Amino acid sequence: MTDALIRRSDLDFLLLDWLGVERLAELPAFAELNRETLTALLDLSDSLATRHFLSHYKAGDQSEPRLDGESVRILPAIHTALKAYAEAGLFGQSFATEHGGLQLPLTVAAASFAHFLSANIATAAYPMLTVANARLLTRFGSPELIAALALPQIEGRFFGTMCLSEPQAGSSLADITTRAVADGADGLGARYRLSGNKMWISGGDQDASENICHLVLAKIPGPDGKLVPGTAGISLFAVPKVLVAPGDFAGSRNDVTVAGLNHKMGYRGTANCLLNFGEGRHRPGDAAGAVGYLVGAPGQGLAIMFMMMNEARLQVGLGAAALAYRSHRLSVTYAMERAQGRPRGAAADTRPVPIARHADVKRLLLAQKSYAEGALALVLFCFHLADRAEAREDKTEEDKTAQALLDLLTPIAKTWSSEWGLVASDIAIQIHGGYGYTRDFDVEQLYRDNRLNPIHEGTTGIQARDFVGRKLVRDKGIAFAALLQQIDATQARAAASPTLAEAGRMLGMARAAVAELVESVVADPAATAALDNATALLSACGHLVVGWMTLDQALTAQQRADQLPAELVAGKVAAARYFTAHELPKIPGWLAPSRSAPQLFSELSAEVF
Amino acid sequence: MTDALIRRSDLDFLLLDWLGVERLAELPAFAELNRETLTALLDLSDSLATRHFLSHYKAGDQSEPRLDGESVRILPAIHTALKAYAEAGLFGQSFATEHGGLQLPLTVAAASFAHFLSANIATAAYPMLTVANARLLTRFGSPELIAALALPQIEGRFFGTMCLSEPQAGSSLADITTRAVADGADGLGARYRLSGNKMWISGGDQDASENICHLVLAKIPGPDGKLVPGTAGISLFAVPKVLVAPGDFAGSRNDVTVAGLNHKMGYRGTANCLLNFGEGRHRPGDAAGAVGYLVGAPGQGLAIMFMMMNEARLQVGLGAAALAYRSHRLSVTYAMERAQGRPRGAAADTRPVPIARHADVKRLLLAQKSYAEGALALVLFCFHLADRAEAREDKTEEDKTAQALLDLLTPIAKTWSSEWGLVASDIAIQIHGGYGYTRDFDVEQLYRDNRLNPIHEGTTGIQARDFVGRKLVRDKGIAFAALLQQIDATQARAAASPTLAEAGRMLGMARAAVAELVESVVADPAATAALDNATALLSACGHLVVGWMTLDQALTAQQRADQLPAELVAGKVAAARYFTAHELPKIPGWLAPSRSAPQLFSELSAEVF
Repeated sequence: MTDALIRRSDLDFLLLDWLGVERLAELPAFAELNRETLTALLDLSDSLATRHFLSHYKAGDQSEPRLDGESVRILPAIHTALKAYAEAGLFGQSFATEHGGLQLPLTVAAASFAHFLSANIATAAYPMLTVANARLLTRFGSPELIAALALPQIEGRFFGTMCLSEPQAGSSLADITTRAVADGADGLGARYRLSGNKMWISGGDQDASENICHLVLAKIPGPDGKLVPGTAGISLFAVPKVLVAPGDFAGSRNDVTVAGLNHKMGYRGTANCLLNFGEGRHRPGDAAGAVGYLVGAPGQGLAIMFMMMNEARLQVGLGAAALAYRSHRLSVTYAMERAQGRPRGAAADTRPVPIARHADVKRLLLAQKSYAEGALALVLFCFHLADRAEAREDKTEEDKTAQALLDLLTPIAKTWSSEWGLVASDIAIQIHGGYGYTRDFDVEQLYRDNRLNPIHEGTTGIQARDFVGRKLVRDKGIAFAALLQQIDATQARAAASPTLAEAGRMLGMARAAVAELVESVVADPAATAALDNATALLSACGHLVVGWMTLDQALTAQQRADQLPAELVAGKVAAARYFTAHELPKIPGWLAPSRSAPQLFSELSAEVF
Repeated sequence: MTDALIRRSDLDFLLLDWLGVERLAELPAFAELNRETLTALLDLSDSLATRHFLSHYKAGDQSEPRLDGESVRILPAIHTALKAYAEAGLFGQSFATEHGGLQLPLTVAAASFAHFLSANIATAAYPMLTVANARLLTRFGSPELIAALALPQIEGRFFGTMCLSEPQAGSSLADITTRAVADGADGLGARYRLSGNKMWISGGDQDASENICHLVLAKIPGPDGKLVPGTAGISLFAVPKVLVAPGDFAGSRNDVTVAGLNHKMGYRGTANCLLNFGEGRHRPGDAAGAVGYLVGAPGQGLAIMFMMMNEARLQVGLGAAALAYRSHRLSVTYAMERAQGRPRGAAADTRPVPIARHADVKRLLLAQKSYAEGALALVLFCFHLADRAEAREDKTEEDKTAQALLDLLTPIAKTWSSEWGLVASDIAIQIHGGYGYTRDFDVEQLYRDNRLNPIHEGTTGIQARDFVGRKLVRDKGIAFAALLQQIDATQARAAASPTLAEAGRMLGMARAAVAELVESVVADPAATAALDNATALLSACGHLVVGWMTLDQALTAQQRADQLPAELVAGKVAAARYFTAHELPKIPGWLAPSRSAPQLFSELSAEVF
């Protein structure tokens, strides 16, 4: 174990000491979970990720996917990596045993997957999308679709994509124009013919899997042949690249073609495509139009997709956390080795010291540590909520609270991890100085890879609208109230710790400031001012949540100090002191405009730019 | 004029209305300055920069310099661009007429140069370094060195470099080990033989100029053959690639070779080299060792270099501002064209609106505008101080105050522009969404190019130490007191403006908070707490200064509203309202740790990471 990807002592602490994932075994769904399984899985993940994913990190960036005739070719090392991942059964970690999976909690699967994301996020994107696709099919697809298209993905033989955006419709899915026209039915259910263009399709084509299952949002035209405006008309379709039994035309190439590859700043190992559906290049059943099978009911496409999107958003947060984490580990190693300058007052003829001994570099390392570890804790906390909320068929009050909290925290987990994880990667370049700016070191690539995270699966602005316009105000703010209860409990514990009482006091101040503004938003959910300043409020809530979790971890570490490595305890305490003293005081700055210039933006004419 | 690089109305406003550069003509040195010259120069700059620099922006990124045997080859388009720049006489803008220059104020030269930086900072780096090199020689070199090495640079025939860092000595120049051994004298003065390795040498080799003049920091060994520890032993040498008359060995290739090229994240058009001096590959006068001529006195190398470094730091700030500026202009254009989503409450079947109409995008555009225009104003303000401080031989009190203020503001101009200019480039990617993350648009390259600016010419951490440890506390804080006077004057003007009184009040609060902390630092300059939190204090002071300047510009724009474009006045007022309401409230957050955890970093053990 190298600790280069995710430090095991930290991960063990988060899972076992802080979250207590072993208690998930009390839920029937996770009865098989035990510490041995967990340890074996994390060992395997670390070793596979190092051997097969990290090893081609630079190669994947340098040798981008290329369009060879009609097919996209990706680096052979990516084939090998994904084959190893499939052979280890890792595609199936979080799926039910009835679907051939290991039925592990999402929290555990996320802890495993973090290694692969940290090692090579572009290669890890293929299983991430495949798992999301298969999960959607297992929940909303017919038994026939599950058997034909989900199970081969859970085995890692087929890969999956999500086809939402179109060139003219990115954040605004209401405006998609891909059409799906009824075409009878066959052994896979109601069949449609799709035509349209889908943009930003990660894994849209590649030569590493037997087949590709596209999940496509499209509109079924009304009797007048017109598409229904808005999101209500959107349905969801499973569109295999090569058609499969028991559908008709099994073995035929479907009418889906790659119109072009996007050449990105980072994340370059992931083939990102513009796909044309139904342009007639291929004619399954001797007719143009991409054959697709309806998933769920007509008009339910966006609702279904959004249920999956929530998990995808946590995965984006996890990816950002993992990149931040490796950025931090590399920075620590570099700062311990790179000698430069001397302590204040040292004579000129003494030897230079490692830069990790300079106060300003410690500041950068501590900031980075708090962002990377904070993001990882936040995302794992959310997956843990999902495990608890979803495990039982009959929901208890506790399950419902977990679900409400998860809904509230999902936009935070996506956005905070993306935004501050990116800062951690940025700091890594700064700590490496000129060397960090060269492609000889990994940190500039980690930055470029991480830069996508605040954009995809809903930009930061979109998340903020969701957070303030929906999640925060839903049920009169009940979820936020539940959050405050947990924060208060932590603050009460902190009051009893001599080294963390001050940190608890700072948390209390931040809590009070945020709660005051949130109350006013909940009282008047339609107020323009709230939406004008939604991103700032999301930032403030994100910092409050991570500050709380950071302090809570430090308290748990202190409590269990006799069973934990001393550096880990000291590190968690330092992070809590740093975050409460240096980061939480940023909150009033984000809240201030809601008072002094509440509607500056909506009132502004675009001519001023 | 396209306004794509630097908006002319804004530049005219800054130069003529806000700074009043025409009044510099009252100083004998700039007696020739008039509005016609200025207009002609800016027209020429915009047109040349668009035609010859912007045109190969992507090509310069894609076709990096390459090492061909012993020589570095750069893109032919860069040759053409620099030839056009030389033919227009632009290398000589800010040099005295006696040296073949145009004797224009630095402010005006900077306004011209901003177009080239905005269009293509990697190509513009060659003239930037050449001008800095020639300026140093004209100030500190002998008449023979000036004639032989400075004048050809002012003509644009030779290019220049600055050779400071070594692989083991980046921020810590005290540790350089390049040796300079006396080797007699010739027509160019005291001659030395240099040996050592110099890292990060921009323009270290290229095939676009007749010759290259390296200015090299090296140590002259003592009688015992040892190098003096610390910075006191550092001297400065002019080391031409090809030796020139009236020195001996004229026409011989000097013993300087390219050991390798650095492959960077951005700024790729600039050849960045590891140079070996004196490895014996070439033997001028049949002896190994790179021939160099002493500039200034022995041991004065760092002092001389630092005088130049101040101008170089302003140039870095200018570059960051220029990249931010183009990032902003591109974002405005995109946001006005890209239709996505609808205003709140609009029916689903209405047409989508340009994203510039959404509150959150307005927020991003306004933030970006305030960073880009703020950075440009800040840097031009500093160049204007330099023009006033340096124009007269006999310094008046006013000149001295200008110099003190310039010294104080230089680390701010370098750092604030780099850090927040980079944020403006980052926002540009965000506004462009997925498209901004592709290499089809310029914004991801603008980000990558801009990412160097917080690193080179002294990292942000180094600037903060200089700012807090030296500039702020010098002469009992007299420079900061002069700054506060100017801020107070602006605040008094704001009180009389109905639309900007609130902005003035916010500025006053920020001023009070910063002044209180600065006073305590000045009272105890050696306090560890001040240096532990130096970067945060630099951030706070930077925001205060830019907030002041932004408000000051808005007030000037209001005053002269009848002579200015209405959008410009509205834009300056909006920027001032934004900056005072959304940015200045960040200041207390930066100041807080000085109270709550003043010595967190210096007391921290490096094991916690």
